[in-house]
Amino acid sequence: MNAISTKQQLPVDKARRYLEPGPIVLVSSHHDGESDVMTLGWHSILNRSPSLVGCVISEQNYSHHLIRQSRECVINLPTTEMTKKVIGIGNTTGAKTDKFSEFDLCTERAQQVSAPLIKECYGHFECRLYDDALIDRYNYFIFEVVAAQVMTDPEYPTTLHYTGDGIFMVAGEMINRRELFSDDMLD
Amino acid sequence: MNAISTKQQLPVDKARRYLEPGPIVLVSSHHDGESDVMTLGWHSILNRSPSLVGCVISEQNYSHHLIRQSRECVINLPTTEMTKKVIGIGNTTGAKTDKFSEFDLCTERAQQVSAPLIKECYGHFECRLYDDALIDRYNYFIFEVVAAQVMTDPEYPTTLHYTGDGIFMVAGEMINRRELFSDDMLD
Repeated sequence: MNAISTKQQLPVDKARRYLEPGPIVLVSSHHDGESDVMTLGWHSILNRSPSLVGCVISEQNYSHHLIRQSRECVINLPTTEMTKKVIGIGNTTGAKTDKFSEFDLCTERAQQVSAPLIKECYGHFECRLYDDALIDRYNYFIFEVVAAQVMTDPEYPTTLHYTGDGIFMVAGEMINRRELFSDDMLD
Repeated sequence: MNAISTKQQLPVDKARRYLEPGPIVLVSSHHDGESDVMTLGWHSILNRSPSLVGCVISEQNYSHHLIRQSRECVINLPTTEMTKKVIGIGNTTGAKTDKFSEFDLCTERAQQVSAPLIKECYGHFECRLYDDALIDRYNYFIFEVVAAQVMTDPEYPTTLHYTGDGIFMVAGEMINRRELFSDDMLD
């Protein structure tokens, strides 16, 4: 796996395969000539179709303002190879630093939104703001995933999961328990 | 680790340590003589203090109605020892089955709410409904964690993380990267 691995289009209703396990993500944004990227752990799938994801993006993050104004972002999925960058991005403010240059991130044009893709990530979920009803109360943004691309090798990414206090859980073994599901529960 | 392992009180603002990594949880509920339990993967931390967690609980789940009426639930944290029960609970409806008896779950009185604790789980997060604004639109319940208990051995639970289609990621290695954080970013 490397920065130039080929990615394939993923149907947007399959976003849950990568986001439901709860990985840390890198959210990139762009508005009016300014770009930023932030590390984020507080997100969840809200719906399959339309493909909705809710994210807490604190007002203290420079990204909050870019995303609120552009109403777009990209949720990028990093893996353990990027642990040091993920932490650095989370500990730096975009108000003072160009994090793309600081952390030597390789960007690429997205298909549907103006925010850049972070190429070394395993996958990208391009998002448009779908509902802003809870932004003022909880900094909670409800996005619709409008396009998605993922690597196909490895089949599952070795993601990072944050527990606080500088300690991360790394994604472990994948187990297949299809035989315990009824057909209508599988997808 | 077993059903009678001792648990300790956890300050409610530490709930993120166990829930932020994105594990599958078992949500138990009780209203007017009826109890239920469901398997849930779509949740995220929303805030530290008050300790808020958002959960998608479909209207198709019997639990939805019990929780909506009682305005309480318990988020129980199962580990890999419980994989078969977690799947069984997720594939059964509480409208027709007493899942506590069907899956031989050991229950215990909670401290603050009427929903039962599921004793063989690693931890319990007792919740009261904090904001019902998004229930009608997204089946999205915003809970406040009002009490929490967790096992202390092992230090971190071997949680299950769902990717859909009968395939789970099992929590892997814990890595400590405190040296990469500034002091004000740790907690």
